[in-house]
This record gives sequence, structure tokens and C-alpha cells, in this order.
Amino acid sequence: MIGTQRIRTDLALETTERFEEDNVEIRGVVIDEDYNEEKDIRTTTVKIETENGAKAMGRPQGTYITLEAPNMSVPDDEYHREISKVLAKHIRKLIPKKGELTVLVVGLGNRDITPDCLGPEVISNLRITRHVIREYGVQGMGEDQAHCVSGLVPGVMAQTGMETLEIIKGVVDETKPDVVIAIDALAARSTKRLNRTIQITDTGIHPGSGVGNHRNGLTRETLGVMVIGIGVPTVVDAATIVYDAMAHLLDALDEAEKKEFLDEMITPPLYSMFVTPKDVDETMKRLSYTISEGLNIAFSKV
Amino acid sequence: MIGTQRIRTDLALETTERFEEDNVEIRGVVIDEDYNEEKDIRTTTVKIETENGAKAMGRPQGTYITLEAPNMSVPDDEYHREISKVLAKHIRKLIPKKGELTVLVVGLGNRDITPDCLGPEVISNLRITRHVIREYGVQGMGEDQAHCVSGLVPGVMAQTGMETLEIIKGVVDETKPDVVIAIDALAARSTKRLNRTIQITDTGIHPGSGVGNHRNGLTRETLGVMVIGIGVPTVVDAATIVYDAMAHLLDALDEAEKKEFLDEMITPPLYSMFVTPKDVDETMKRLSYTISEGLNIAFSKV
Amino acid sequence: MIGTQRIRTDLALETTERFEEDNVEIRGVVIDEDYNEEKDIRTTTVKIETENGAKAMGRPQGTYITLEAPNMSVPDDEYHREISKVLAKHIRKLIPKKGELTVLVVGLGNRDITPDCLGPEVISNLRITRHVIREYGVQGMGEDQAHCVSGLVPGVMAQTGMETLEIIKGVVDETKPDVVIAIDALAARSTKRLNRTIQITDTGIHPGSGVGNHRNGLTRETLGVMVIGIGVPTVVDAATIVYDAMAHLLDALDEAEKKEFLDEMITPPLYSMFVTPKDVDETMKRLSYTISEGLNIAFSKV
Amino acid sequence: MIGTQRIRTDLALETTERFEEDNVEIRGVVIDEDYNEEKDIRTTTVKIETENGAKAMGRPQGTYITLEAPNMSVPDDEYHREISKVLAKHIRKLIPKKGELTVLVVGLGNRDITPDCLGPEVISNLRITRHVIREYGVQGMGEDQAHCVSGLVPGVMAQTGMETLEIIKGVVDETKPDVVIAIDALAARSTKRLNRTIQITDTGIHPGSGVGNHRNGLTRETLGVMVIGIGVPTVVDAATIVYDAMAHLLDALDEAEKKEFLDEMITPPLYSMFVTPKDVDETMKRLSYTISEGLNIAFSKV
Repeated sequence: MIGTQRIRTDLALETTERFEEDNVEIRGVVIDEDYNEEKDIRTTTVKIETENGAKAMGRPQGTYITLEAPNMSVPDDEYHREISKVLAKHIRKLIPKKGELTVLVVGLGNRDITPDCLGPEVISNLRITRHVIREYGVQGMGEDQAHCVSGLVPGVMAQTGMETLEIIKGVVDETKPDVVIAIDALAARSTKRLNRTIQITDTGIHPGSGVGNHRNGLTRETLGVMVIGIGVPTVVDAATIVYDAMAHLLDALDEAEKKEFLDEMITPPLYSMFVTPKDVDETMKRLSYTISEGLNIAFSKV
Repeated sequence: MIGTQRIRTDLALETTERFEEDNVEIRGVVIDEDYNEEKDIRTTTVKIETENGAKAMGRPQGTYITLEAPNMSVPDDEYHREISKVLAKHIRKLIPKKGELTVLVVGLGNRDITPDCLGPEVISNLRITRHVIREYGVQGMGEDQAHCVSGLVPGVMAQTGMETLEIIKGVVDETKPDVVIAIDALAARSTKRLNRTIQITDTGIHPGSGVGNHRNGLTRETLGVMVIGIGVPTVVDAATIVYDAMAHLLDALDEAEKKEFLDEMITPPLYSMFVTPKDVDETMKRLSYTISEGLNIAFSKV
Repeated sequence: MIGTQRIRTDLALETTERFEEDNVEIRGVVIDEDYNEEKDIRTTTVKIETENGAKAMGRPQGTYITLEAPNMSVPDDEYHREISKVLAKHIRKLIPKKGELTVLVVGLGNRDITPDCLGPEVISNLRITRHVIREYGVQGMGEDQAHCVSGLVPGVMAQTGMETLEIIKGVVDETKPDVVIAIDALAARSTKRLNRTIQITDTGIHPGSGVGNHRNGLTRETLGVMVIGIGVPTVVDAATIVYDAMAHLLDALDEAEKKEFLDEMITPPLYSMFVTPKDVDETMKRLSYTISEGLNIAFSKV
Repeated sequence: MIGTQRIRTDLALETTERFEEDNVEIRGVVIDEDYNEEKDIRTTTVKIETENGAKAMGRPQGTYITLEAPNMSVPDDEYHREISKVLAKHIRKLIPKKGELTVLVVGLGNRDITPDCLGPEVISNLRITRHVIREYGVQGMGEDQAHCVSGLVPGVMAQTGMETLEIIKGVVDETKPDVVIAIDALAARSTKRLNRTIQITDTGIHPGSGVGNHRNGLTRETLGVMVIGIGVPTVVDAATIVYDAMAHLLDALDEAEKKEFLDEMITPPLYSMFVTPKDVDETMKRLSYTISEGLNIAFSKV
């Protein structure tokens, strides 16, 4: 299957679509779709249940929930509030049900590159409570019980010289949260999903994912605690755009010819470029707010 | 000539290349090349001298100087200083030789979108003197003679509700500079020119150019004073990338078939997307500094 | 009356307090107070009705409305919504009742200095409609009638080399709005008013006011259209703090001695310093949002 | 000694001045002054050598080097280059002489509050090498030997919910640098030292210091590695300004009366305010660059 390796998407949903195109059913992968017509939100849950499924999908076992809401890029406060609530519901289902939780929210990405600033922006809108609770107890929050929320913007390797994993692992070992929630801007395969889709997964962040291409995953294995990944696709790899445009055209060629042709076509410089919508700055502001509010709602009550 | 309309470049140099490919000579256009081997800077001067040349090139009569310096994206202070000096030399040749000048430097673009922030960043590094000279005279600058430099960041239409031209025209009418220098991020056709090329022109800024696609030009006609445009290509239209990748492939088709095919291929959403290098934030910081210094050198002495 | 000249406040309300302290009644000035206990918002309207009143108050004839809401610096979304509504009500009373209006909102101040960034921040949250209405008509707004709102961030003189007035006058002459609304961070006399007070006035912005100390006013006289000024005190002059602390202490001295003493005490460097709360960044974010929403509500319906 | 507790300064130099005023010599503290007339840089080295000296000075044993350069706030590139070199020389004297070093530079403070953004700004100008050396070896740096430099911007407690110490300790434990260099904006006692003074110390960062008032020190004791603190005073506590202004005036009172008077005078709100120069944004840009260059020079050669 040409392309599973070459053509990158961080959305599990898009990987399943490739199988559907080829009419292939993947054992060990369960897909469930739900469409809320009134709110125009499509929720797709992809569960990778076996090692075989993980191999076929090219990503670890676990649950991947995708919210698609075409109006997410429209500046409608009420609508965004709805999405925040749906997001909060899904987060609550994934986190442990043990009462008060200590949660570390990590905003991945580079705050200076607009399509990569989602993570840092989310942290700046987040209701941080850990320092208040540690100083004054949960009473300081005016509640009987309260989740303890901290936030971190680790920066990217070119700015810090350190792997994001090194920084977060250090902070996790020191502050011992129950769960890490990592927010990241993602790469999609289809331009029509950009800024209109949220993926929530209990598998964390995988190597090679995100706009900035993390080299090491943030997972239960590497961090020692549960990691929930929340991402929005904000860019498409420039190479993907070209690849897609050519695909139909090349149908006549056999796989080997096709591969050779594309290898020549998609030159290395293209791999260091990305495609992003022109109104990305307005959109990032709105989306980061919607996600922060989702988290704020999720952690406002124990 | 398919593509002159469809495929967008803000570099006069790239337009001439298309003619060269087709072995067409354009009357009314004089091209002069110079290569400084030691500094690895290629300077191409395109002079559009007749109305016919302007029509063929799709841009107004005037001089377009392009500096290509492959190392411009490398963080080497000494090298950038050299480029600043070369830039200053070209600016000095274009501006009037009337002694003390009043110069308004305008930083076009959106400061919140990294590949479009070149203009605003240049203004933030610029040595502004107008207010000092108006308050204390040129003696306030410690000189006998001094150019009077002001700077403006008008913002983009989505932020202001006003055409950039409306804002600048208002300020020009009120403050009456001798020359306007407009800095803008440009769209190129070739990814290999991104962030390595500076275009300086005495024709100002044309409608439809720049990352943000100005609807009205900034020219002597619209502003009533000389306008020098300085630009760096920082993005390629997503549609261009695809178009280029397909071009060879389609050589067998005739022009009409080709056009039909591409019209279908390059869907409208792609036209609202751009391609940009992943290290664009570091590069913008460096390039804006290099250009500011070029201006600072150009206006440091009368 | 020592201090009227020396001790600076941009709040008309604080000037009236000084007279009250001295039990002086000012002819030509009418003060009206209203307290909403439920919302804990105190509204004071100071009307300067005669030339004599203007002279005594050291500011032009007109209406100065001050909202004092101690909880304005608390992060309570509902409460801020209430303030936005009250603000909208007062703006609507001041603007002309002529149906559809063209409004230019100007964000004064320096976006890089936290306590001076109120104006630029307000513009970034503002619903800008002028470009949509000019392109698609009011139908483009989905309404039968709509106000036409544009926004401008002129920058400060050290950044532009131009007086703020020059820039705004140019843009007003070019785009001909019915009314200009100028947003600015102000200097107060009392630290307890910082970030908890909004002043709305139909007299515009006066010379010497604002954190950045404008040299020329923005008024109907200078701009040729109605100018509404909206401001929040975010700093106290460092000299004021010292002056106030000493005032009681010096009661024993006569005026001349007092003046001499203070002139010596409050050295020139102190005049170029300001005092601001440590949590000023969070507060600016919230306040700018509250004011933008006030404007958005005021102009959402004709 | 009234005031050692009350009146805050992060500069060891200013603490010694208080003793000088009182003509008190402090045992265990050695002060050495050097004035470079040509460059107009005054270097004062305060060595606290005994436990007694530490107690008297209210800060730990160690070396405190203060560079005072009145022209530091002037935009003169050549002059700043000189200061960078002097700073590099002092850093090199304090760090271990063991050949290649692993250095973690930490930028303390809040990047959104101008006078507190010094640390984050320094990191953004720093030459980061650790990731290159780990990937390609020192050859990747084009050298036989190279220091390994990483950088971290931890944020402040209100943004993260975590103590700065927790974050840095985690990262230090994980990445094991030989030395931590912590950059911070400081509080001074005298407004004339603001933005013109750099303090370098081998004692790290102490509790209660910095504009943001760290609650836990960053020291060899807390982090387990050598910590060098580099700071520039950018604010004066509002309470200090008032205190100083009153001090002379109160000479007649005895200590107890004075204390009572001042306690009443300097009300709590004043303690949460700071005083800072009006041109603080330009100055922060320049100073952070000067310090980054000092570090870049210090670590450019082994």
C-alpha cells in the first residue's frame, strides 16, 4: 500500500478512510460513527483493539475520538460553547474516575509559528488551580472538592536544545500528576479538515506527529502516567498536497513505477514545507479558546 | 501562455524565467545579471521599458532589482551585514538625490501570521527620526544634515475594515513624505527562492501582490509620491506547488486539455492556502533585521 | 491650589474629589451619582457646562461618565458581561441617533508595554464590519441595517515618528467616519482605582493624557468629527505616589514651603516612571475584552 | 536596622551602600571596586566570605559582581558589544574550568509583563547547541570542542500552577547539566540603577528575589548543580519609592515611631505595585540582546 508510510496524517480517522477506499476491512479496528444533525457535529470513534489492528493502522492500540464540525472555523460564540461541552464530555469519559485528580496540561508547539501555536495558546486560556489548592487547600477554590490543574509550555527543540519528552518527563517526575493532557497542532491529509476537526485519544502523542514532528512519543510508557492527546489539524504537508493531486493521474502506472515517479517529483525541500489556510491566525485564537473552555468545563467539577 | 494568469509570482525575475523556458524574447524588457562570487549574491535587474514589455510581463514599467543570496537563511551576522549594505546601495540609487529626504516606511502584512509579518517586523527595527528632527532640528540627530524617517504598520483589512491604501493615503496626505518605502512579504513560484531573495522596485506595490493580496496598489499614481517596494518571498501558493508538480506530467496534453485538467485538479480551497517553510519564524526575525539595517544604512547619511 | 498642575489624573472624577476635599463648590460643574447595589457598579456623571467650570476642572466642557466596579479585576465572565452591557448603554447615549453610523475605533498606546496595551488589545477583539459592508452591502452582515465599524492601531510616536493625531487625521480625512471612538490607558491619582474604573467622555482625548502622554488632543476641533474617549486607569505616576504619601506629613508647612520641599523631593527621573499593579497582564486581557464586547454590543444593532 | 527587611533590593551592591551610609563596616564582606573610565563601566565585586557576613547582608555567601554602565540604556550597538564582552569574561571566571560543559540557561519571569520579560527574551536570542551536538556530535558545530547549551522558559506560577523550582528541578534531574544559568529581572532600591546595571552571582537566585518574587531559591542546594544568577534591575517596589522619599523627613523621629508611621503610610496595595521607566519596552529588547550575546560569547569557545 503505497503511501501509508509516505503520506502523513495524524488523524486515525483519515487512516481508516484509506482502507475504506480500497474496500479493505481491518481486523482489530472498530469504527463507530454518530452524527448530531442539529449541531452539525460528526463524532467518529476508532478503537484499535489488537496488535494486528495497531500494525495496520500504523499507530498504537487505544481509542481515537474525532469531532468534525464544519462551522468550527466560524466566529459563533454559542456554537463554540457547544463544541467545548462535547469536548468536555469526551475528556471526562477518558480520565480516571477517582475523584480529585492532579492534571498536567502540556501545550506543545512553537508559539511563534501561527499554525503551531495551538498548544501554547490553550495553556494561556486555561484555569490553573494547582498553586491555589496547594497554598489554601480546595477551600481556596470555594469548593469541597476540586481538580488540581497545572500547565506547561515546554517550547520546541530548536528553542530549548532539549527533547520535549525530556522536559515533560522531568516535570512529571517532580510534580507527579495523575494524568497528562497534551495539546498539539496536527498534520492532516485533507485540506478540508483543517481547523474543523478535534481528535481526542487516550494513547498520547506519537513520534513523528504534530506540526513540529516530535521525535519521541508522550505516552504512558515514556511518562509513567496516563496521557491524553488532544489535537487539531492545522497544516497539510506540502508533499501530501502534491501527492494527492497526482494520485488519480498515475492510476495507469503500476506501484513500482508510481513510487519511482513520485520520489523524483516530491523533492526533499517540499518535505520541509507545510500548507496552511490564509486565515489561520483568527482561527487559532478561536480554536484555542474552544479547547481551553472544554478543559475548563471538564475540570470545573469533580 | 497558460499560467501567467493562473500561476502567481510577485517576482519579476520569475516572470522572465517563464519566457526563457519558452525561448521567447520580450521586446521592451532589458535583463541584466551580475554575480558576486565571493559573497555568493546574484543581482538581476529587470527593466520594463515599454508599454508592450509591461503587458507581456503583467506588471508596470519600471526597475525590478532582485538579490538572490542562498545563505540569506543562514544565521551568519557578518553575511547579513553584507546583504544590508548591498540593499542600502540599491535603495540609494532609486531614491531622489535631493539632499535631505522625508521618508515614510510602511510595514505591510499581518503581524500575527508568521510568513506575513516581515513588514511589521522591519518597522520595529527601524531607526525612526522624524519626531526627533521635528522637535530638536537635525542637530538633535548630532548631524548637519539628516533624513527624516517615519514608520507605519497599517494592519490588514480583516483587522481594520479599511483598505491599506486608504490608511496610507490618509497618512501621506497629512505628513507629505518625499518617498514611501513599502515592505511586504511576497509569494514566489519556486520554493527554492523562499526567504533567500529580496526584490527592490521603483514601481511600488501592485494589486494582488503580497501574501495578503492587496486589492489596491501603492504607487505614485495612487499615493502621489514615489513608492519603492521591497519584498521577500516567504510563501508559495498551494495551487502553484501542485501546478508545478503536474506540469511536466502533462506535457503530452495540448494547452486546452491541460487547462481543463488543472482547473478540475486545483480546487478552490487550495487557492486560500499557502505553503511555507517550517523554520519560518527564525527566518523572519533574521530577514526583517537585515532589511531594517539596509534601510538604516541607506538613511544614516544624507 | 497646589497640585492641580503637578499631580496628574486623567479622571474627571478624581479632579472633582480634590474640590470636595477642600469643600469648594465649582460653578458650571454638575455631578450626578448613581449606585447599583446588586451589581456593585457606581456611575458618576460629571458635566462641565461652562467655560468657568472647564477652567476650574482643567479639562474641556462636556460629559464625563465614570463606572467604578471593584470586581472588574476579578475573572468572572458573567460580571464582565454586565459591565460590557452598561458600557454599551452609555456609548449608545453619546453617539448620534441618525441610524446607520460609520465608526472608526482607534486603539491608542504601545502594544509592547503591558499597562499601555489596552487600546491595541481592544481593537484585536473588535467586530470589524466596514470591509464586509463595502463589499457585500449590509446584507453581507445578514441584517437590514448595520453600523460600519473600522479599527486602527496607530502606534506611538517613538515607533512611528509621527504624532498620533497626524495618522488619525489622515485616516479620518480619507475614510470620513461619523464618529471616532478612541480607547486609551489612563493615569489615575489613586492606586485603588487602577483597572477597576472606566471613563467615557464625549470630549475625546486631551493633550497630556494617557499613559504615553499625547501631545495633541483627539477632539472634534482637531479631527472634524465627534470623538468619544473611553479609558481605563492602569498606572499612577510615580511622582504622584510619593506626593500623596507626603501630603499629610507636610500639613504643618505653608504652601510655599511645601512646594519647595516637594520640588526637591520629587526628582525629575521619577517623572519618567510609572506605578502599576503586578498582575497587570491578566487584567489587561480581561479589561480589553470587556470593553471590546461593550463596543460590539453597542454597534451590533442599529 | 529598620528597612533591611522592609526595603527590598536584589542588588548586593545596594545592601552594602546602606552600611556605608551608617559608616558600619561588615566583617566577612570584602568589597572591590574597579572603574573603566574609557568605557564608563564601574565593576563592583562583593564577596560574602563568612556566615556572619551572610547574616548581615541578608543573602548567602558567595560572589556578587555588579556592572554599572550608565549608557546601557542608550541604543549604541558598539557599546553594547563591549558590555557583552565584559559580561562574558565574568561568566567564564565563574563557571568550572573542565573543558566542554553542559549548560542550561533558564529565562525566569513573565513574558507578557514588559519589565519581567528579560529572562524569556534572553532565551529567544540564545545560541542553542545541545540538540545539534547530541545529533551530530561536536563536529556538527564545526568545532573540535563545543559547550552544550540548552534553554528553558518555565513561565510563572500563575501561568503554570507549579513553582519555578519544581519545573527546573525536574528538567535538571532529567538532562543533568553541569551548570544552570538563571536570568531574571530584579528589583532595585534606587531608580537610577534601573536598566543600567547587571548583577552576576555564583549564589543563584534567592527566595523573594526577582520581579515576580520567587518563593523558592534556585541554588546548588535545591538543584544539585552550580547555579549562576544574572539579573538586571527593571523595577523598584512602589513602597520603596515612598519609603525613600520619606526617610530624610523622618530623621527626627525615633526608630519605633518611624516604623509605626511608615506601616500606616505604606498601605498593603502599594506592596503589590511596582515602579518602572516609561521606555521599558525598547530597553528590554536591547538589554536582553546584550546579555544573550554575553552568554553566546562566553560559550562560543571551550
